[in-house]
Amino acid sequence: MPQISNKGKLMPESPIRKLVPFAEAAKSKGRKVYHLNIGQPDIKTPEVAMEAIRNCQEKVIEYSHSAGNLSYRKKLAAYYRNIGIDVTEDDMLITTGGSEAITFALMTCLNPGEEIIIPEPFYANYNGFAISAGVEVKPITSSINNDFALPEIEEFEKLITDKTKAIVICNPNNPTGYLYSKEELNKLRELVIKHDLYLFSDEVYREFCYGGEEHFSAMNLEGLENNVIMMDSVSKRYSECGVRIGAMITKNKEVINAAMKFAQARLCPPGFGQIAAEASLETPKEYFDEVYNEYIERRDFVVEALNNMEGVYCPTPKGAFYTVVKLPIDDADKFAQWILEDFQHNDQTVMVAPATGFYATEGLGKNEVRIAYVLNKTDLKNAMETLDAALKVYPGRTI
Amino acid sequence: MPQISNKGKLMPESPIRKLVPFAEAAKSKGRKVYHLNIGQPDIKTPEVAMEAIRNCQEKVIEYSHSAGNLSYRKKLAAYYRNIGIDVTEDDMLITTGGSEAITFALMTCLNPGEEIIIPEPFYANYNGFAISAGVEVKPITSSINNDFALPEIEEFEKLITDKTKAIVICNPNNPTGYLYSKEELNKLRELVIKHDLYLFSDEVYREFCYGGEEHFSAMNLEGLENNVIMMDSVSKRYSECGVRIGAMITKNKEVINAAMKFAQARLCPPGFGQIAAEASLETPKEYFDEVYNEYIERRDFVVEALNNMEGVYCPTPKGAFYTVVKLPIDDADKFAQWILEDFQHNDQTVMVAPATGFYATEGLGKNEVRIAYVLNKTDLKNAMETLDAALKVYPGRTI
Repeated sequence: MPQISNKGKLMPESPIRKLVPFAEAAKSKGRKVYHLNIGQPDIKTPEVAMEAIRNCQEKVIEYSHSAGNLSYRKKLAAYYRNIGIDVTEDDMLITTGGSEAITFALMTCLNPGEEIIIPEPFYANYNGFAISAGVEVKPITSSINNDFALPEIEEFEKLITDKTKAIVICNPNNPTGYLYSKEELNKLRELVIKHDLYLFSDEVYREFCYGGEEHFSAMNLEGLENNVIMMDSVSKRYSECGVRIGAMITKNKEVINAAMKFAQARLCPPGFGQIAAEASLETPKEYFDEVYNEYIERRDFVVEALNNMEGVYCPTPKGAFYTVVKLPIDDADKFAQWILEDFQHNDQTVMVAPATGFYATEGLGKNEVRIAYVLNKTDLKNAMETLDAALKVYPGRTI
Repeated sequence: MPQISNKGKLMPESPIRKLVPFAEAAKSKGRKVYHLNIGQPDIKTPEVAMEAIRNCQEKVIEYSHSAGNLSYRKKLAAYYRNIGIDVTEDDMLITTGGSEAITFALMTCLNPGEEIIIPEPFYANYNGFAISAGVEVKPITSSINNDFALPEIEEFEKLITDKTKAIVICNPNNPTGYLYSKEELNKLRELVIKHDLYLFSDEVYREFCYGGEEHFSAMNLEGLENNVIMMDSVSKRYSECGVRIGAMITKNKEVINAAMKFAQARLCPPGFGQIAAEASLETPKEYFDEVYNEYIERRDFVVEALNNMEGVYCPTPKGAFYTVVKLPIDDADKFAQWILEDFQHNDQTVMVAPATGFYATEGLGKNEVRIAYVLNKTDLKNAMETLDAALKVYPGRTI
C-alpha cells in the first residue's frame, strides 16, 4: 500500500472538529448545545442575492472567466473605490472563497521553505494553506494582557531571516476581534519596506467594526503598492459563507499575472456564487445597519457577561464577531470536551473553540477560548449562564 | 519590490490563452470564429438542475460539510453503485470541480520532488496542478500512429524510479478521445501492484463513450482498493462546467482521511453548485440519449470531414468530445495563429488548440491540433469547410 505524503501527515486536524463527536453525543442525550465555536452567522443572506439566484435564466452554466466575471469585477472595484480603496477590475482575481485567495498569494509569492510571520493567535486554517504551499509559519505572540495589540516591531525584527518573505495580518482579527490602528499598520509599513517583504492583509471582516472605530486598509499604506496583497470574501459581509466567493487584490501586476496562471489551471470560480455575490453588492444600507446593531448588542452583552464571571477576562473586541477570553481553567481542550461530555445546566451546554488551536507556539492559549457571538441574544444569554455555571464546577478550575 | 515564487514563474500559460487576442481581433473585423478549441459544450444544463436553483428557499447560505452535503454524497454513491462502482458516501469528498480533486490527490499522496507518469498528450492543466504540488511530471508518449493507445508497459517500466509515486490516466481521454480497454487497464494494474504506486484515474468523460464501447472504471481493478483514486466532475456529464463540483473517490481510508484535512482547511465546496449537482442526479434518461445521439453524429461528421481533407489523419475517438488530428502543417502554433490572423473563408475562421500544449516532451505535437466537437452540426460543417480551405493555402503546408 503506497504511503501518503508528508503534507498529508502534517496537515492539522481542525481544533474544533475533534469536539464534534462530543457535541453530537450531548445532543443525542437531548441536550441543547449552543455553538459558540464557529463563525457561521445566523444572519440572513441578503434578499437581493437570493432573488438573483431564483431568477437565474441561464440555459447553460458555462465556465466563467478565470479571473471571475467581468461584470462582477467591475462592480466589486466600484465597491472598493467607494470605501476609499483605489482599484480597478484588473487589480483582482475572483477566488473560490477567501481560502483560495490566500493559497494563490502563498503559491505566487513564496518558495517552499520560505517563511511567513503571523501574529498569534491566528486563524487556524492559515496553517493548512502554509503546509499546502510548503511554507513555514513563524508566529509572533500577541497577548491578551494588552488586548492582542500588534506586537512590538522589535519582536518582528527578531524573527526576520533571509527566508522571511511575508507578514500576514487579519484585520479586524479572527480570532481576537482586534482592529489594527493606522499607527500600527504604519509601523508594519516601515518594516515591510525595510526588509522588502510582502504584506498579506486578510480583511474579510472589514464591515464589522464597532464603537466608531474606522477600518484602515493595508491597500492604502503609502508606497506599498507592490507589497500588499489583500484577501477578501463575501462570506461574512453578506452572510453567504456557502457561496465560496472571495477575491485576491493587489496593485502588483507581476503578482496578478502569475496568480492568474494558477487561476486558469483551476478554470474558474463558482458560477452561481458569482451571481449571488454580484447581486449582493446591491444590498440596501438598512441591511448593514440592522446587522451592525445586532452585532454590537451581542458583543456588548457577551463582553459584559463574561467579565462578570469570576476569574474571567474578556477584552472588548473592536471588530469581527469573535473574542478570545481568558478563563480560570487548567486546559482549554479538556474544558471544551468536559463541558460537552460531563456538564449540563437546565439540559443545556455550550461548545467553545479552545484557543490552543489558534496559537502556533506550543503551550500557549491553554486558559483561553474563542467565542463567536453569532447567535441571537436569547441563545447568547442562555449560553453565558451555562458557561458561568460550568466554570463554577469544572474540576480543573484554577481559582 | 519582492520577487514572485519559482512556482509563479514556472506555471504555464494556457496554450489556448495566447490565441485569444487573435480571435478577438478576427471578431472585431466582423469575422465569425468557430471555437473548436474549448471543452465548453453548447448542450443545455438539465432542467431539473436549473429548477432546483430557481426553487432554492434557503434563508442563509451556510458552509456545507467539508466533505460535501451528506444528502448529495449518498445520492452520488448510489449513482456510482448503479453503474457498477461499489462505493459509499464515506469513500468520497465533494470537491470544487475535478481540478480540486486532482490537487487534493497530488497533495495527499506525493511529496515535493516525487514523480507522476502521464501518457501524453494529456490535459494541459495537469502541469499546473503538479507545479502547485511541487511534483514532477514524467510524460510517456502515446502516438497518433496507433490512435493513442496505452503505451507498452515496458515503456512505463523505463520511466519508473524510486521517486515514481503515481500513474495518471484520463479515461476517456482528453485530448485524444481514446477509451482505454479493460485489457490495457489490467496491464496498468499489474504495474501498479509491482511498484506499489497510486493510480489516479480521471473519469469525468465516463458518460461519453461511443459505438457500443463500454467504459471500465479503474475503481473496479481487482486488488487496487488502496491504490486507485478516481477524479470525477459534473461539468461535462450535465453540461454545467460553471457550477464547480467534482469529487475525489477512493476506498483507501488513509487517503480519504488525509485529504479531508485539506478539505477542512478550505471549509467546503460551493453550496449552490451542490444543489444543482444533487438535482442533476435526477436527470431523465432521455436527456442523455439526446446528448449521446447528438455527440455521435457530431463525431462521425467531424471524423469523416477531417479524413476527407488532403493529408489529414483523424483517429476515430471512442469517447469524450475531442479528437487530436494530424494536419499537413509545419507548426501547429503558427497555424492556429495564422488561421485567426490572416485567413478567412466567407468571413469565417476557426480557433483550434495546438497539440503542442498537450505534450510535455518538447517538439511533439507540432503537426497536430485538438478539435472539440462541441458545436452544433451547422457550425461544425462551416468550421470544417473553413479548415479545409485554410489547409489548402496555408504557407507552411507540408504537402
